[in-house]
Amino acid sequence: MLESRKVFLVNAVLNYFSSLCPITSGFIQEIEKSVEPLLIKKNKYILSPIDNNDYVFFVVSGLVRGFIKDDNKEITTWISLGNEFIGAIQHPNENTQPSIEYLQALENSELVAIPHLLIDKLYASYQETNVIGRKILALQYHAASERAIIARIPSAERRYEKFLELNSFDVSRVPLRCIASYLGMRLETLSRIRSKLVRELV
Amino acid sequence: MLESRKVFLVNAVLNYFSSLCPITSGFIQEIEKSVEPLLIKKNKYILSPIDNNDYVFFVVSGLVRGFIKDDNKEITTWISLGNEFIGAIQHPNENTQPSIEYLQALENSELVAIPHLLIDKLYASYQETNVIGRKILALQYHAASERAIIARIPSAERRYEKFLELNSFDVSRVPLRCIASYLGMRLETLSRIRSKLVRELV
Repeated sequence: MLESRKVFLVNAVLNYFSSLCPITSGFIQEIEKSVEPLLIKKNKYILSPIDNNDYVFFVVSGLVRGFIKDDNKEITTWISLGNEFIGAIQHPNENTQPSIEYLQALENSELVAIPHLLIDKLYASYQETNVIGRKILALQYHAASERAIIARIPSAERRYEKFLELNSFDVSRVPLRCIASYLGMRLETLSRIRSKLVRELV
Repeated sequence: MLESRKVFLVNAVLNYFSSLCPITSGFIQEIEKSVEPLLIKKNKYILSPIDNNDYVFFVVSGLVRGFIKDDNKEITTWISLGNEFIGAIQHPNENTQPSIEYLQALENSELVAIPHLLIDKLYASYQETNVIGRKILALQYHAASERAIIARIPSAERRYEKFLELNSFDVSRVPLRCIASYLGMRLETLSRIRSKLVRELV
């Protein structure tokens, strides 16, 4: 990756932080020293259960999903189109363990990896980190709560309609098999629902 | 409620806060002045869509669930046995709106209601609130992520087994119809799975 692009990506994270709370020069220096800009090619894993769950990631561009394997089937647990923090599920009071979630780029994606160890250090040293952390966690908590609710809607058709309503992005970028497992339905069910909705629109 | 019990409940919240971060006397006074201890009788609503979503609640004792209504059916979205914060889903950057979730006591439950307005004031005035807030939100984010994952496991039997694994509490306190809708299965399916597991244990 070009050095100038690396600088751009790190600045994207810093801009995001400073939109949440003013940041100090010490905080900025720690970030610049310890985060890692990444370009992940389409379909490659960012994290898998062979890795320790040592980082959170800021997605600058691209398309990323989380998934688990159940009975060797891939179940999409979330989808991100960027400008937000993502990470594999991890209990805040437990030491780092291997991830149970896979993180995969569905398009070429630019991310910035931020080590949990750095975050802990920032929490201890720079007060603004606590403000930034709780604002990001409030967004993540809200998004996870929405994911938890949508999966429990009994009708497959209403689950898909809710998915369209909640996601203003161009959902055609997401492979149908990922949307189907995210919404807890078979691919054929999703295809049938999509055809029906198109027919109703005509 | 007896005055002494009210004091006990408010102290339970303060103890929880101080287990996360040392709290100052100004913070303690604001809490004592503005929170509201509540006793909610079994089956009564704590919050419903006719209410504005103005509070978060610390559950001291009892059993509380969140649910939504979909097509007039109640879908349980979470279950709490206490010693934690609960609330209806709300986007952190939006103004208070009517709740889309119902909060209901499934047993006589003791809670402490904390106004969002107070929390915003504490964030602005007492640094420790940001540490406490991000630690509570990290726990809530983790719990919501677990709820989002469990609902997407394709096999109903594995969903129920995962539910038992994640919840160390006595699940027999929770009505079966709540567990069934929480796990996205019909009551008959849940009963069949439970009978099968009992037979396998014999």
